[in-house]
Amino acid sequence: MWRERPTVALVITPRARLIDLQGASVNDLLDHLRTAVGDAHVLTDGADVAAYVVDWTGVHAGQALAVVRPGSTSEVAAVVTACRAAGASVVPQGGNTGLVGGGVPDATGTQVVLSLGRMRTVREVDPVAGTITVDAGVVLADVQDAAAQAGRLFPMSLGSEGSCTIGGNLATNAGGTAVLRYGMTRELVLGLEVVLPDGRIWDGLRGLRKDNTGYDLTQLFVGSEGTLGIITGAVLRLFPATPRHATAWVAVADVAAAVALLGLAQQHAGAHLSTFEIANRQALELVLAHLPGASDPLAEPSDWYVLVELAGAQTDDGLDDALEAILTAAVEADLAADAAIAGSPAQRTALWALREGISEAQKVEGATLKHDVTLPINRLADWVAEIGPKMAATLEGVRPVTYGHVGDGNLHYNLSAPVGGDDDLRTAAADLSTAIYDSVAAGNGSISAEHGLGRTKAAAGASYKSAVEVDLMRAVKRALDPDGLMNPGVLLPLVGQS
Amino acid sequence: MWRERPTVALVITPRARLIDLQGASVNDLLDHLRTAVGDAHVLTDGADVAAYVVDWTGVHAGQALAVVRPGSTSEVAAVVTACRAAGASVVPQGGNTGLVGGGVPDATGTQVVLSLGRMRTVREVDPVAGTITVDAGVVLADVQDAAAQAGRLFPMSLGSEGSCTIGGNLATNAGGTAVLRYGMTRELVLGLEVVLPDGRIWDGLRGLRKDNTGYDLTQLFVGSEGTLGIITGAVLRLFPATPRHATAWVAVADVAAAVALLGLAQQHAGAHLSTFEIANRQALELVLAHLPGASDPLAEPSDWYVLVELAGAQTDDGLDDALEAILTAAVEADLAADAAIAGSPAQRTALWALREGISEAQKVEGATLKHDVTLPINRLADWVAEIGPKMAATLEGVRPVTYGHVGDGNLHYNLSAPVGGDDDLRTAAADLSTAIYDSVAAGNGSISAEHGLGRTKAAAGASYKSAVEVDLMRAVKRALDPDGLMNPGVLLPLVGQS
Repeated sequence: MWRERPTVALVITPRARLIDLQGASVNDLLDHLRTAVGDAHVLTDGADVAAYVVDWTGVHAGQALAVVRPGSTSEVAAVVTACRAAGASVVPQGGNTGLVGGGVPDATGTQVVLSLGRMRTVREVDPVAGTITVDAGVVLADVQDAAAQAGRLFPMSLGSEGSCTIGGNLATNAGGTAVLRYGMTRELVLGLEVVLPDGRIWDGLRGLRKDNTGYDLTQLFVGSEGTLGIITGAVLRLFPATPRHATAWVAVADVAAAVALLGLAQQHAGAHLSTFEIANRQALELVLAHLPGASDPLAEPSDWYVLVELAGAQTDDGLDDALEAILTAAVEADLAADAAIAGSPAQRTALWALREGISEAQKVEGATLKHDVTLPINRLADWVAEIGPKMAATLEGVRPVTYGHVGDGNLHYNLSAPVGGDDDLRTAAADLSTAIYDSVAAGNGSISAEHGLGRTKAAAGASYKSAVEVDLMRAVKRALDPDGLMNPGVLLPLVGQS
Repeated sequence: MWRERPTVALVITPRARLIDLQGASVNDLLDHLRTAVGDAHVLTDGADVAAYVVDWTGVHAGQALAVVRPGSTSEVAAVVTACRAAGASVVPQGGNTGLVGGGVPDATGTQVVLSLGRMRTVREVDPVAGTITVDAGVVLADVQDAAAQAGRLFPMSLGSEGSCTIGGNLATNAGGTAVLRYGMTRELVLGLEVVLPDGRIWDGLRGLRKDNTGYDLTQLFVGSEGTLGIITGAVLRLFPATPRHATAWVAVADVAAAVALLGLAQQHAGAHLSTFEIANRQALELVLAHLPGASDPLAEPSDWYVLVELAGAQTDDGLDDALEAILTAAVEADLAADAAIAGSPAQRTALWALREGISEAQKVEGATLKHDVTLPINRLADWVAEIGPKMAATLEGVRPVTYGHVGDGNLHYNLSAPVGGDDDLRTAAADLSTAIYDSVAAGNGSISAEHGLGRTKAAAGASYKSAVEVDLMRAVKRALDPDGLMNPGVLLPLVGQS
């Protein structure tokens, strides 16, 4: 069971002045919004709004008073000002690829969805300074491309990179497959532009790596999930390009072997080690079943697999040798049974597709219950060994689809329903998640490694924190958003909810 | 001139209830403090207090009601609670090596200095997880040593590492000579323990690299200079040890050549490049004059020098070759005139002493006016070329002692008085600093790269920021420290000051 919700000293309640949805105040607000962004960019028709009120998982669905699509930072400010005057709360949305209901409205139909999707300008690329300045609505893959065109690397990489936006990545402090080498989103950002809850614009678009002139406001907004303001622009760090890769799909017996292999890889490849991902056989089988063209690269099935990649500059000639040394050492140490090494860019893409396709394949398979946990890496293997039987005891036939960023101690411990048992999974969901979160908390882990808390996990997040920590977070929230109109109920539970 | 101070919407004024310093309330407070930490650790005698009320520069001197030396986190909490009850403000102090008056009391004699100096326990070293957990009062060199004994590296390195404390490093987000490779202090910390202004303890001592469960409170406290709470413990990141080094002292013509040499060094050494420091001839001459045993490693004088170092694991055999390749390419490109390569650990130490000795040598030489600025690195050379004549025009004979972390765009642009003209420097100080800060601000730089704002630069810091940004910082301050009792006047100016 979650621990009892801590006493809350500071109360945030969104002002709910929009009592009569058919009333004059709503029409006034819509008029103001149309003036701010143009009629074409205020959506209220059900069909137009539909794609903005349900998230990627399909689990989190709400209603919106309107969806507003501003085209500039000043238009965002005008929208926020209008909503504030009307007492309407605002739900910022990027590519709507979140997994915890953080970017979709609640069920009241009183919230305004503010989509950053029209703000897609790459403002500046400075390869010498190693920075790129972008609008919040630029799709992650477009940030990567703009960096590549300047001969640089923007390293963040996610399965959803073709549709998620950099603003959403920043708001959620996104992770992905390059965290091991380059860190989370917060380590890739130098400065932000933010529309504050009072409609003012904070211009913090500085590209300096050293600037000790006050509180780190940038890091406060990163990961705040739209609850403190709306990120409209960012200065991001660029890195030297890594056009050369050495990539392998490795069969390992268990998580303990994967963790030991990580140690070998770090020893042999040092800073060149850029990816170290894990997947269990169940995850691979779903991909093989549902991803067109996917095939098992190894002759024999294995309980677990690791995707390992080294990356380097054009002048780094030793990547293939280093990978071979890692694999040789792994076989000698009985850590790996077999491995497929990518011999061409196409083969590399095929190996990556096995890893990147898991989430989509699991969705196609049926009902899914997602968990995104971190454990201290030296406890990871024991945790996986212990949690499996607990899951089976709670719901017979439940299928753990376990994969993720083992190099960071981060697993997506997702459960697929027993075959034909989607409803059974839904019934058992709370018990399954509670068992997982309790064991993660007991092991000094995190119940949300990289997806954030959103609406789904806000109460759980608070329940596993101390009263002091929740109070601190509420104090920060109240200081920046005293009216509680920025994405209420996300990240922190509304008072009275649990 | 600094820009006009922005309008301040949120007012912080420290409660000043300690009106009569001889009164009963003071005696009550001292009694409570003695109960909290023991009689021996509440210092009020002038001689005992002296070392705690003047900072390293000698410029910032104040008076203290008392100096309190708690021995544990709970004692820190008790001291803060007692001070809060009495309305006394608290000035946290680590090794008292700050340069901007952030750790010494003001002149009123009403403040309590809370020294962390007795909290020196290394709580845990976990080489597998790559973490070390320490009390705030552990001296930086002792953190480095504890990591080294576990076969790991804690990379932060400063001239004052033998006496500064990790708590002070965290509170000021310290920089140093390893930022180029490993980042500022905020990039080296995973979790904190903090005594809050209300006396409660926030236990955020988590060692996870991925934990997206709310606002990043850790990063909020890092760099807050004791104004939001008192850091009492921290979980820090450890890195693979780098026992091998290749080090050179290189003569370059100017800052532009140094920046170009940096590009070459990055190209040839990649992730092995760990240090890239600059110093002008004036800086070296002061060291040669005042540091016993120092000698010029090169036959001919040069206007500027670079200290470059590559560092690697025991297995990294190519460091010497890479350094030679850098220097060969530099000579071919006319970027370097000469270089001395350290052929032994003793020679390496001697080269480092030339760099690390500058600050002390300049202090011995006489009156010094310090500036710690960042410029975008591609503007650095022009800035140095332009600011010199402005300084000379303001004060004839003033001697720029310019050195610092050129790889980070960060220069310590310090001025020594004209020979025999200490008083002249003091008279011209405001004009000189204003000219420097104005030109830095105009060039999108920072007026404090790594030293923080402290008491000295709080007003200047606010004057170069937008009203929105100052309001945000004041909102954060008020949220966490509503009574304004934590290090008031540091980082943010008191209202009415400028």
